[in-house]
Amino acid sequence: MKTQTILLASRPQGLPTAAQFQFETRELPAPAAGQVLLQTRYVSVDPYMRGRMNEGKSYIAPFQVGEPIAGGAVAEVIESQNEALPVGSVVVGNLPWQEFVLSDGKGLNRIPTDQAPVSYFLGLLGMPGLTAYFGLLDICQPKPGETVVVSGAAGAVGMVVGQLAKIQGARVIGTAGSAEKVAYLKQLGFDEAINYKTTPDMAQALAAAAPGGVDCYFDNVGGAITDAVYDLLNKHARIALCGQIASYNDTETPVGPRPETKLLKSSARLQGFIVGDYYSRWPEGVQQLTQWYRQGKLQAEETITEGFDQIPAAFLGLFKGENTGKALVKVS
Amino acid sequence: MKTQTILLASRPQGLPTAAQFQFETRELPAPAAGQVLLQTRYVSVDPYMRGRMNEGKSYIAPFQVGEPIAGGAVAEVIESQNEALPVGSVVVGNLPWQEFVLSDGKGLNRIPTDQAPVSYFLGLLGMPGLTAYFGLLDICQPKPGETVVVSGAAGAVGMVVGQLAKIQGARVIGTAGSAEKVAYLKQLGFDEAINYKTTPDMAQALAAAAPGGVDCYFDNVGGAITDAVYDLLNKHARIALCGQIASYNDTETPVGPRPETKLLKSSARLQGFIVGDYYSRWPEGVQQLTQWYRQGKLQAEETITEGFDQIPAAFLGLFKGENTGKALVKVS
Repeated sequence: MKTQTILLASRPQGLPTAAQFQFETRELPAPAAGQVLLQTRYVSVDPYMRGRMNEGKSYIAPFQVGEPIAGGAVAEVIESQNEALPVGSVVVGNLPWQEFVLSDGKGLNRIPTDQAPVSYFLGLLGMPGLTAYFGLLDICQPKPGETVVVSGAAGAVGMVVGQLAKIQGARVIGTAGSAEKVAYLKQLGFDEAINYKTTPDMAQALAAAAPGGVDCYFDNVGGAITDAVYDLLNKHARIALCGQIASYNDTETPVGPRPETKLLKSSARLQGFIVGDYYSRWPEGVQQLTQWYRQGKLQAEETITEGFDQIPAAFLGLFKGENTGKALVKVS
Repeated sequence: MKTQTILLASRPQGLPTAAQFQFETRELPAPAAGQVLLQTRYVSVDPYMRGRMNEGKSYIAPFQVGEPIAGGAVAEVIESQNEALPVGSVVVGNLPWQEFVLSDGKGLNRIPTDQAPVSYFLGLLGMPGLTAYFGLLDICQPKPGETVVVSGAAGAVGMVVGQLAKIQGARVIGTAGSAEKVAYLKQLGFDEAINYKTTPDMAQALAAAAPGGVDCYFDNVGGAITDAVYDLLNKHARIALCGQIASYNDTETPVGPRPETKLLKSSARLQGFIVGDYYSRWPEGVQQLTQWYRQGKLQAEETITEGFDQIPAAFLGLFKGENTGKALVKVS
């Protein structure tokens, strides 16, 4: 069995390009005892993967140059020597970017096929949805009537954060980077949505959208939007620090106004987190998100690119803001 | 009865000077029913008071130009028309900078005179001690063997933070601004003390002092020391953001490396706070601090200036780092 695989060709300096990705054809042996052969159906491309392309210590090990890039994927078992994973099982897990993968099944989770489209287990009901769930409900803890700001609101995480905040009875303001995304956020029920690319003064726009100040901030972006939100914090504000896509491609440490005095004056709490911090509570999160989805309280948007060879382009598109909702590649 | 009082003459731009303070003699009437006449014994000068000299929203109302400056003080009741506060009672409270004060007793707390020097109720057993107590024990929650960094460690709050961290079994690193202060911290039991004024590379010195990384950071200072600590945070580090004396006299918003990516990678929690956030738990704090003091587990240092007319100089001295431990003025 032959499979295409995508290797990290070199580490990017700043914004990655197509030159970082190398396609190669590899031969896979037949599954040995305990192994399964998987056919990849959907590959997830996520902003956090940019960090893994760098060398150096972070919360997750770096990709190695010359080795396959790996990330979230949904795959189907097409050959099995593992009783726990019969042929036809659909699984989600961290898999190399390959059309076919040989696996011993460790770290794979079987997903139901009757609850939601299987691709949702990479978005609304997967890592991004859980990131939103724990970051908002555990860290921000919005109360009815409070004001929640979400940056990167039309992304895979942000779209869920805003909907969860509405379920909690909060007033929700989202920032996003196109008129289409702003329209999508309004359709999702966001009270205010601001296009940061066309708004000349974000500080003024956010202040106008949050006349009573900001109680919770879910930050996917960082940079100037975050600076502006810090000026609006109410006493005892809670900030979930989830992502900093505005600076992932910076080659120097970004510089900005020091936030400490603002956080001090408002007795604000800022918590950096990754969804892995909540690993033991994932089943609870998936169950609650699935229930809300099936009750019609949550909806999901996906930007699906077709074709294994389009994975690098879909990944690079994240940094141009090309996706609304979850960015996926349909492989088969 | 005549009393001297010190008014805010004008709002400072940047570092305050003697020109901000105006001495005036005022006439006080005899106490009416319910009132007491207080003779001020000790006046506390504290860095947070710099913020009250500015206009604009903060966690505490600004001083008004032409009105007395007020802050923590210990005073004795010398005339009383209030049964709850007989002559000879010693009280602590927020009082105007005056030799004598007429009060209805609201907001005053009687303090015992047999537990500790009464001045300690402005330091170790008062607002700074409670700030250390709640900031370290409630926010940082150091565990035995963890590494705690305290900036401004030889100040009124920092000296208590370090001793409390030792009581908790942590390894403690303090930063301070003179060889005398460093020697004092060593004598207090700090494991490492670093003179930031003579150390050419604070990032390197902190990294050498904390080879296992930093679990807790109690920040009184901000600026470059804080930047260096952020680079050393261990997973799930806790930061109590208490003061930013490095920037209190800045006329522009200070700029520095953005901390968010560092906080995100370490899943760190940063909590801004003021001791007023813990008002309901003050009695618990005073009781515990008093017990540890009387058991010999806590000691206090005071820098006492003598004379009512020296209050402005003692206050201005805070920003030159003149005090070791609590800065006080003995008025009578």
